[in-house]
Amino acid sequence: MEHNLSHTIALLTRTPKALDSLLRNLPDDWTRGNEGEGTWSAFDVIGHLIHAERTDWMPRVRIILGSWEAREFEPFDPLGHVREGQGKSLEQLLDEFARVRADGLAALEALNLTQDDLDRRGLHPTLGSVTLSQLLSTWAAHDLTHLHQISRVMAHQYRDAVGPWSRYLGVHHCNGHSAP
Amino acid sequence: MEHNLSHTIALLTRTPKALDSLLRNLPDDWTRGNEGEGTWSAFDVIGHLIHAERTDWMPRVRIILGSWEAREFEPFDPLGHVREGQGKSLEQLLDEFARVRADGLAALEALNLTQDDLDRRGLHPTLGSVTLSQLLSTWAAHDLTHLHQISRVMAHQYRDAVGPWSRYLGVHHCNGHSAP
Repeated sequence: MEHNLSHTIALLTRTPKALDSLLRNLPDDWTRGNEGEGTWSAFDVIGHLIHAERTDWMPRVRIILGSWEAREFEPFDPLGHVREGQGKSLEQLLDEFARVRADGLAALEALNLTQDDLDRRGLHPTLGSVTLSQLLSTWAAHDLTHLHQISRVMAHQYRDAVGPWSRYLGVHHCNGHSAP
Repeated sequence: MEHNLSHTIALLTRTPKALDSLLRNLPDDWTRGNEGEGTWSAFDVIGHLIHAERTDWMPRVRIILGSWEAREFEPFDPLGHVREGQGKSLEQLLDEFARVRADGLAALEALNLTQDDLDRRGLHPTLGSVTLSQLLSTWAAHDLTHLHQISRVMAHQYRDAVGPWSRYLGVHHCNGHSAP
């Protein structure tokens, strides 16, 4: 489907609650386990989602809607999630994600974007010219890529426990294309 | 990690609420879209999860705990989800999944399984000899493989809308190893 602003907002509104329902008070073996050295746990992913909310989505929306001179985005810091998670519990991160997401969506809705706005362009540091519509679509798809990653990372924790059933579990054959 | 019954139950308890939070009242474009002819939508996956609950998990637990003669499982019907979904709304399916999962978990907990029970074996029609512990681990990992699938199928709906960002979205590079 084409980008649809109300569909994007519908999804973005639901993700924090879905992750909260899945992860809150789940044993650490599920939420702190990763796929090996240098890979992310579910905990790390929530830190990343918070960091992206602070530095990526609405800041880039504002850059696109600003003057042409300012339309190049800041590169994304791939280690921002580490700072977000330091000294916090998963439950604190889930609360924080819900809060920053709600703030971002309130700011987005206050813009009352028109089709002309959605067609405006910004300059991504590596992808080149992108539209506001593509940025907002990516905000939603980015939630889904990390839900995809979290389900894979958690399933990895039972890779041996399932025994021969691993053959039939597609998630055990996913090669980590959505890992950081 | 090794199979841990309380960890398995913790995850199985959360999945219906997580899927409900993600999908309830989301526009049909998200929940009824699939990845092309013969593939499943999020709606289809919820039907499949209900069907698996009715025919796969606790029925197989009972087979393993029964007499040796009866320990071969019935083959799984891959089209059972179609019957589960007929004439129903997604919201009805989400309610039904929550109900059958709660029933299944209540029945599981009432068994007060011992380690000896968890080591008992049944005969899978294609995988051969499997333990009760492996079956229960697979119940949990099966939730995760379908959460992985749902996030991929939903992300597919925005494949074009994200424009050049698709390159960076791992979920758009997943080749469907968890499709039916």
